Amino acid sequence: MIDLHTHILPERWPDLCAKYGYPGWVSIEHCGACRARLWKDGRMFREIQSNCWDPAVRVADCDASGVRVQALSTVPVMFGYWAKAQDAADLAAFLNDHVAGVVQAFPDRFTGLGTVPMQDPRLAVRELERCVRELGMPGVQIGSHVNGRNLDDPAVVEVLEAAAALGACVFVHPWDMMAADRMPRHWFPWLVGMPAETALAVGSVCFGGVLERLPSLRIGFAHGGGAAPMTLGRWEHGFRERPDLCQTMTRESPRESIRRVWFDSLVHDPEALRLLLSVAGNGKVALGTDYPFPLGELSAGEVVRKAGWLDAEMRESILHGAAAAFLGERASRAVRAAGGAGDGRVPPHVDATA
Amino acid sequence: MIDLHTHILPERWPDLCAKYGYPGWVSIEHCGACRARLWKDGRMFREIQSNCWDPAVRVADCDASGVRVQALSTVPVMFGYWAKAQDAADLAAFLNDHVAGVVQAFPDRFTGLGTVPMQDPRLAVRELERCVRELGMPGVQIGSHVNGRNLDDPAVVEVLEAAAALGACVFVHPWDMMAADRMPRHWFPWLVGMPAETALAVGSVCFGGVLERLPSLRIGFAHGGGAAPMTLGRWEHGFRERPDLCQTMTRESPRESIRRVWFDSLVHDPEALRLLLSVAGNGKVALGTDYPFPLGELSAGEVVRKAGWLDAEMRESILHGAAAAFLGERASRAVRAAGGAGDGRVPPHVDATA
Repeated sequence: MIDLHTHILPERWPDLCAKYGYPGWVSIEHCGACRARLWKDGRMFREIQSNCWDPAVRVADCDASGVRVQALSTVPVMFGYWAKAQDAADLAAFLNDHVAGVVQAFPDRFTGLGTVPMQDPRLAVRELERCVRELGMPGVQIGSHVNGRNLDDPAVVEVLEAAAALGACVFVHPWDMMAADRMPRHWFPWLVGMPAETALAVGSVCFGGVLERLPSLRIGFAHGGGAAPMTLGRWEHGFRERPDLCQTMTRESPRESIRRVWFDSLVHDPEALRLLLSVAGNGKVALGTDYPFPLGELSAGEVVRKAGWLDAEMRESILHGAAAAFLGERASRAVRAAGGAGDGRVPPHVDATA
Repeated sequence: MIDLHTHILPERWPDLCAKYGYPGWVSIEHCGACRARLWKDGRMFREIQSNCWDPAVRVADCDASGVRVQALSTVPVMFGYWAKAQDAADLAAFLNDHVAGVVQAFPDRFTGLGTVPMQDPRLAVRELERCVRELGMPGVQIGSHVNGRNLDDPAVVEVLEAAAALGACVFVHPWDMMAADRMPRHWFPWLVGMPAETALAVGSVCFGGVLERLPSLRIGFAHGGGAAPMTLGRWEHGFRERPDLCQTMTRESPRESIRRVWFDSLVHDPEALRLLLSVAGNGKVALGTDYPFPLGELSAGEVVRKAGWLDAEMRESILHGAAAAFLGERASRAVRAAGGAGDGRVPPHVDATA
């Protein structure tokens, strides 16, 4: 199995507030050997364990769950899009060098997706090129928006154009969720806001004509596209009934456009996976677990194992082939290594019916 | 067929800004015999046709499409939750009297869902009781939130409690969509915001324990629950993994809670309908078209006809039985009249494969 959606952090990093001279940056406080806390603006953002930073722990977890390769990307709270661009670029370079180092140490087990300072397209493209050309990464992870600008904003599209030209993949992750003031309880920014963010991002590249204009762009979305698969019928209907509102930037309908993109499989429900596959098409849904976070798929491939109606070809595509196609040639060594696990087999000690 | 989700307006109403003494109210400007424009704060909100106000036109459209009964509710822009409560109550009474009059004129073809001034629970309950006891309505339509307060807010729950006690049904419609500043293009408040609003409303009555505490409440959600069906797996997983965040107001999991509610069928995609049915269960999905608006199902029952895998029982439930159960006894005359059309047959001139 190839896991397209995992997060990693360095074990330590400098005091960024001191380094850059203003607050808002995330700090890490270790509590013993295996636990740490992330702090932001004086508030605890998240508690993490050593599987978030220790490659050896990750490899052991992967061996236990049958994952051959993880695509490593930073935690979205580290994007720094809100900050001075030069500082975000500096942090991105630090994080990307760290990821590249982990991949270099375990080239058969990891591949890396970089982060880039999206608030400044010129700096973002420069770091994207460095990720691909110097660090050997297959692509980058970006947020679902950039300081409120959606993915069809010209400044964002500039980076997507560069990615398409480079042959770099772009994995889109929800972050800085909309309408947080409406969601004070029940973890709703994660449970309602994130799916809405992702749908807005998918919708933006469809209705904004980005996919039509950049046919070679490989772009993928976390969490099975969030609300997008369930809403596609509504989008398609709106597109046809109100061309004055919906066809201003493209004539390609959302149902056509959405076939161009990839999604991860993180929907936690075989029936939702069925809808996602009907929307995305075979070959466009790739295993993603959100490892090592608790809202992720804690047993990698669980939703695929539950979807007993998947045939061998579809299962192989989700567990291996779709990610290999999305990541492309630059992930080739790791992906070749994963080939043997691409048949959907799980280690004998994993309950295949769980 | 019974159509649970349709909107109606009076042909004319007083100048509300003059009547109540402040701006923000909607006015109607007729342009010839069959068209009118709705204005709000000096901007055109929507153009409508006579099918929005003329019962005879509606009946003719219903005859053409095979709909025997429409549940009539106001257009959410008329809710007036933002206004002085007494004024919103006054407008609600006016709108409800109008709907009751239309139902009285065509008792076999229409049933009515009232509107109530949700910003003031006492006034809302009073108008709810009047709708049910004096106007003979089966229930009311409310918005997905009340001035930013979600459906698990105590002031909202007070009205839901009264509805449960009265045996009145509550149909929830998205309105005043979140994060409008993030959605300036592509009709996104309707295509992305509304599904997110509805998901937030469904999630609020689940995670907020409202459904658990009011087991007799009949509550239904427009647009097939918006993003909720696609997100339920994520909700269920979050509920189990983070009880500290998600089980503060209920121990009933979202997958259990959601079986208590109804949804309309307005998803425009048979595969989305399949997911919705898997989440809601048989008997809980009722035909809804959003008549007479262009984002609705323009040929009533189209998604049901496209879903060729539905068996006769499921089709009957969607086209008739689920709405009859949701509306309850107070819609009995109209529902009895609709019985003959409950088998999913469509008039011979309607293309059943469309």
